[in-house]
Amino acid sequence: MTSAEAGSAAAGDPVVLLAAGALEQHGPAMPLGTDTIRAEAVTARVADDLGDAVVVGPTIPVGVSPHHRGFPGTMTLSTTTFAAVLTEYVGSLAHHGFRRFLVVNGHGGNNAVLGTTAQDLLGTHPDVELAWVGVSALAKDAVARLGVSEVHGHCGESETAQMLHVAPDLVRSELLEPGTTTLAQMEPVARLSRTPGFNLALAWERLTPNGVLGDPTRVSAEDGRRIIDESVTTLARLVREWRA
Amino acid sequence: MTSAEAGSAAAGDPVVLLAAGALEQHGPAMPLGTDTIRAEAVTARVADDLGDAVVVGPTIPVGVSPHHRGFPGTMTLSTTTFAAVLTEYVGSLAHHGFRRFLVVNGHGGNNAVLGTTAQDLLGTHPDVELAWVGVSALAKDAVARLGVSEVHGHCGESETAQMLHVAPDLVRSELLEPGTTTLAQMEPVARLSRTPGFNLALAWERLTPNGVLGDPTRVSAEDGRRIIDESVTTLARLVREWRA
Amino acid sequence: MTSAEAGSAAAGDPVVLLAAGALEQHGPAMPLGTDTIRAEAVTARVADDLGDAVVVGPTIPVGVSPHHRGFPGTMTLSTTTFAAVLTEYVGSLAHHGFRRFLVVNGHGGNNAVLGTTAQDLLGTHPDVELAWVGVSALAKDAVARLGVSEVHGHCGESETAQMLHVAPDLVRSELLEPGTTTLAQMEPVARLSRTPGFNLALAWERLTPNGVLGDPTRVSAEDGRRIIDESVTTLARLVREWRA
Amino acid sequence: MTSAEAGSAAAGDPVVLLAAGALEQHGPAMPLGTDTIRAEAVTARVADDLGDAVVVGPTIPVGVSPHHRGFPGTMTLSTTTFAAVLTEYVGSLAHHGFRRFLVVNGHGGNNAVLGTTAQDLLGTHPDVELAWVGVSALAKDAVARLGVSEVHGHCGESETAQMLHVAPDLVRSELLEPGTTTLAQMEPVARLSRTPGFNLALAWERLTPNGVLGDPTRVSAEDGRRIIDESVTTLARLVREWRA
Amino acid sequence: MTSAEAGSAAAGDPVVLLAAGALEQHGPAMPLGTDTIRAEAVTARVADDLGDAVVVGPTIPVGVSPHHRGFPGTMTLSTTTFAAVLTEYVGSLAHHGFRRFLVVNGHGGNNAVLGTTAQDLLGTHPDVELAWVGVSALAKDAVARLGVSEVHGHCGESETAQMLHVAPDLVRSELLEPGTTTLAQMEPVARLSRTPGFNLALAWERLTPNGVLGDPTRVSAEDGRRIIDESVTTLARLVREWRA
Amino acid sequence: MTSAEAGSAAAGDPVVLLAAGALEQHGPAMPLGTDTIRAEAVTARVADDLGDAVVVGPTIPVGVSPHHRGFPGTMTLSTTTFAAVLTEYVGSLAHHGFRRFLVVNGHGGNNAVLGTTAQDLLGTHPDVELAWVGVSALAKDAVARLGVSEVHGHCGESETAQMLHVAPDLVRSELLEPGTTTLAQMEPVARLSRTPGFNLALAWERLTPNGVLGDPTRVSAEDGRRIIDESVTTLARLVREWRA
Repeated sequence: MTSAEAGSAAAGDPVVLLAAGALEQHGPAMPLGTDTIRAEAVTARVADDLGDAVVVGPTIPVGVSPHHRGFPGTMTLSTTTFAAVLTEYVGSLAHHGFRRFLVVNGHGGNNAVLGTTAQDLLGTHPDVELAWVGVSALAKDAVARLGVSEVHGHCGESETAQMLHVAPDLVRSELLEPGTTTLAQMEPVARLSRTPGFNLALAWERLTPNGVLGDPTRVSAEDGRRIIDESVTTLARLVREWRA
Repeated sequence: MTSAEAGSAAAGDPVVLLAAGALEQHGPAMPLGTDTIRAEAVTARVADDLGDAVVVGPTIPVGVSPHHRGFPGTMTLSTTTFAAVLTEYVGSLAHHGFRRFLVVNGHGGNNAVLGTTAQDLLGTHPDVELAWVGVSALAKDAVARLGVSEVHGHCGESETAQMLHVAPDLVRSELLEPGTTTLAQMEPVARLSRTPGFNLALAWERLTPNGVLGDPTRVSAEDGRRIIDESVTTLARLVREWRA
Repeated sequence: MTSAEAGSAAAGDPVVLLAAGALEQHGPAMPLGTDTIRAEAVTARVADDLGDAVVVGPTIPVGVSPHHRGFPGTMTLSTTTFAAVLTEYVGSLAHHGFRRFLVVNGHGGNNAVLGTTAQDLLGTHPDVELAWVGVSALAKDAVARLGVSEVHGHCGESETAQMLHVAPDLVRSELLEPGTTTLAQMEPVARLSRTPGFNLALAWERLTPNGVLGDPTRVSAEDGRRIIDESVTTLARLVREWRA
Repeated sequence: MTSAEAGSAAAGDPVVLLAAGALEQHGPAMPLGTDTIRAEAVTARVADDLGDAVVVGPTIPVGVSPHHRGFPGTMTLSTTTFAAVLTEYVGSLAHHGFRRFLVVNGHGGNNAVLGTTAQDLLGTHPDVELAWVGVSALAKDAVARLGVSEVHGHCGESETAQMLHVAPDLVRSELLEPGTTTLAQMEPVARLSRTPGFNLALAWERLTPNGVLGDPTRVSAEDGRRIIDESVTTLARLVREWRA
Repeated sequence: MTSAEAGSAAAGDPVVLLAAGALEQHGPAMPLGTDTIRAEAVTARVADDLGDAVVVGPTIPVGVSPHHRGFPGTMTLSTTTFAAVLTEYVGSLAHHGFRRFLVVNGHGGNNAVLGTTAQDLLGTHPDVELAWVGVSALAKDAVARLGVSEVHGHCGESETAQMLHVAPDLVRSELLEPGTTTLAQMEPVARLSRTPGFNLALAWERLTPNGVLGDPTRVSAEDGRRIIDESVTTLARLVREWRA
Repeated sequence: MTSAEAGSAAAGDPVVLLAAGALEQHGPAMPLGTDTIRAEAVTARVADDLGDAVVVGPTIPVGVSPHHRGFPGTMTLSTTTFAAVLTEYVGSLAHHGFRRFLVVNGHGGNNAVLGTTAQDLLGTHPDVELAWVGVSALAKDAVARLGVSEVHGHCGESETAQMLHVAPDLVRSELLEPGTTTLAQMEPVARLSRTPGFNLALAWERLTPNGVLGDPTRVSAEDGRRIIDESVTTLARLVREWRA
């Protein structure tokens, strides 16, 4: 997209899509960039569906991952820096007339800072609307159909299925193995941290020795296709409503 | 508590309870400090139950409320400042040997910054455990029993009931009136912002003309007593598990 | 106070009173919150006297106390964070039309940051007037009448007398004992730091082994009543002049 | 790359390559991401050449571009935020044992902040070595051979040639047109800003009406191939020396 | 002083003298740099007296002067930036073994930030001792002997006398004129701001039309000599005590 | 200069000259303040030449010197603090109508932060023009004529010659001695850091044991006079062009 094309696009009042992910451990078999890859995949497909109604901005490839830094290769931004990046992305584009921004987020650890950034923007950029969604959270039905373990989530059934669909060559399938799958396997404080309504941030090595929550060996690329499809369909519908 | 008593308390490895709330509009009938009052009430009762197992630290009376600033009297901290206050409270007490901190939160707008603060503390204070809970979220059964409106929440059924129980003299009961109670009453973008999984921060006046979500006229002090009781009982149990 | 009541109050152009204190060691007999308790007591009484001429805002319960952190239980804000809190309190209320703010300060360690905050507000909020007073400094006559020790101040004669009056149940009277009362008891650098005109910040344990400056055993609740009365009377008069 | 693979890589003490660019106007014919695309192309080719001697980290796709914000679509980070991102990337990886970092920079506007970040890291991370290079500056011979205009640079001969080689489908060749090509075309203060040794930051619209410095119509993909080849060869040699 | 000489000096554990002043309006007759000039004069004379017992560090020529920015030429640092400069001066020299620092301050507007900086250093540099003094405050007897106006201070009797002694060629003596000299000349809120114990920061133009408090026409260079002599003598004595 | 004189000066739209230097090791023979002294000397002479066309503002005596902190006496500002000081100097004077600022810089380590500050000012102060020049870089011919060593720079031929001219009494001539003068004397990574186009920040002790690059024993005060003369003449011409 050239500068002039960006100028024309802004005049059409599109939603700017910003993919956000993480560069953090994803167990023995999946790449560090798993969350970013999934977020970019959904973003690209939604953009294909919606044409001029959206514009794709730059990805935020590294997220807020201090809980994973016990595992090699994990990178993290402080919440302050993540917020500054997103705020300056939004501010730069608002200067050119863009008003609506949607972060397609592949990493749960970014949810809190997406919330704080949106709150602070209410004060500094009252004309801007910033929304954010989680890739997996948009596909509740397809995820439910997987029949996930009692304990699941990070590089578990859903994330692995998605990767087998969107980037199968980046998954070392022969290294897939279950992580913590039941509450009984956890030490008490880790178990407590999984209690709904009780929020307790713990370093990830206290939850699982291999970095995995759930059993990624049970899923297929077809499971992943269903999740991605539902995520894309749901999101495209929401964006259309927003612009209506 | 004197300095020497604080030193003795730290040696017992208690959980430090910190109430957090807001000072923001709560409709025509309820005080600006509603969220702080409820958080302090639950904190005080949990402290009574648990004795030496907990210590009560200073309240954070003003929260993150930029979405309410269209209504008179609303005060707000930026998310950066809220995080700095909480981090320095935790850091000060960690210097004296306290290790576990629990924020009893009366205001949903603080959830995001509680999350970012906890994440940043994982890097800077790896020996500290910071947890947080929401007063209403701890009382799922009692709230469900209220039979809330389709749209409810801020100064609606649950919060009003709690106030009628813990601070009835601060509620102008004759001014209680319904706010927005159905999705159909909302403009489309406001309705969109209530879609589960689609997070969109909006100024509150776009959701409700009088600041209220739900129908506060339908509830009684007895409803509030049930909510507070369940909240206190649940929280006391969780704290005991944490220290076990 | 409800939101609508805050809106009405702002229209009357009142002075917003903000109590500020500390949560720091106050010797063997007095509570950590001594400074906050005294500041809130004076604030409440001034508010009673002045009615609609003032509005009471939220207290700042933790102050700037790095010099006391050698003693258990002491909490401190950095000067940056204290300034941010006060600035955002003032900014929030200025948004709703309040223009005059008065910090009733119970802790000398807050004086510097009150000064820097007021200076920075001259640039960012030129329409705001921020004033601050010290509880004890308002009662010069009553304090002089106590006949204080050569060295006195923190949890000494004046502060103890005030607490015996406003919160006698929080003073462990049987534990009251003199601290450093003469310059001769001090090591040279500590003595130097007490030279008028020579400002030298030292950790408190270099000034006094038990945290006390002065002899708190010599005073009564009646002494405290006289101090508080003079403080309240003086402050109420100054506020009236300000609004005239 | 999985977490375990990152751990193995760190043990080999490789140089971490970080591409940095910009998302800013590049005249009527070239995409906003021109600088990032060129930086990533050189990075990828160097990585191919050097194998295990290097690891490729995440790209910084948006740079410091306030001088281009008069043109639509330009995004910019403040220098503070750019520095924070780079510092946290380096800090995250240094935590896992990586010691040498090389930013392959496609945007001259990033040079200053690369310098300040490297200086501050000398104090905070004395064991880290951070180097940075400019894509075009590494290919002095091939650029000289182009016979550039008196005034050239941003989206001029060299950058356009590179894009015709690495991403020809993203160049709207039919829209290529000369920008400012001689000092005589410039207003005096703009001309002054081009004086060697006199550094004066000006908004870009004061230098050129169409955003271009130089004549991009004169170059070919083959010119670009020579520049990229020299850049890659030079850089690969320097990295080998560094690790020797 | 060379690097090696600085190394030798540090081994002698001297007091590092840092002059601080302001660059702000000083009425119709005195230079913007009045406060810096007086601080440097006292610093130089104390250094002459004390020899190896002290080392002179760099001056901080611009201070905290937002209250004077209504008058041309006034420069100001925010309190945050002033604190950062002083903290980094102290930190740099502490790295080389210097432990004691004394700010010789010519500008009352710097007092608050000197206080906050010293407090924050207690936490970050516990081995450092930072003291500060005011040039005029060190010469109480000589100032008292002047017989100052009811209202006096900024570019009034004392400051003018000092300048007539240390930099007579920089004073436009023919332009010296009285400013506000009595409380009765002030508007009520300005008068209120002069009440002992009531701290209220006001823009300077609310206190005096010509920027002057007091009557600078009444004093002589001889008056100034007495002030400077007393200031120097007092300060030299205090530094000797500190090092004893 | 008085306040009124500053007001008049601003009306003439002059260039504000700000000298910047460093307080860092300059080998065995030259003072820590070498860079500041040279910058102030050139500034003063340019000001003499240009009269009302320029105004001299306060010097920034301490620069960005983390690479020299291995040598005693070196002081450094973080790049953030240096930028804040310069930004607030510019902002203060822009408030009074000054528009053009020129930093006369004696220390190469300040170049990066001068660049970032100028970039950020483009966004915050679009009406301001900030330029900067290096003292030695303005005198290319005279420096070339010196016939410098293969490796030269910091306290080498050019800087020493300048000091012998402008401040001969501050040079311990008997202690002048060569430092590193050839690439062959350097360890490989140090040599690599001298490769044109390869930017690598290293602590100075890795480049030279005595802190010197080049041979300062080979130059005379007359060499220095030629450098300073050319620097002053060039700069005066550039300033005249700027104001034309």
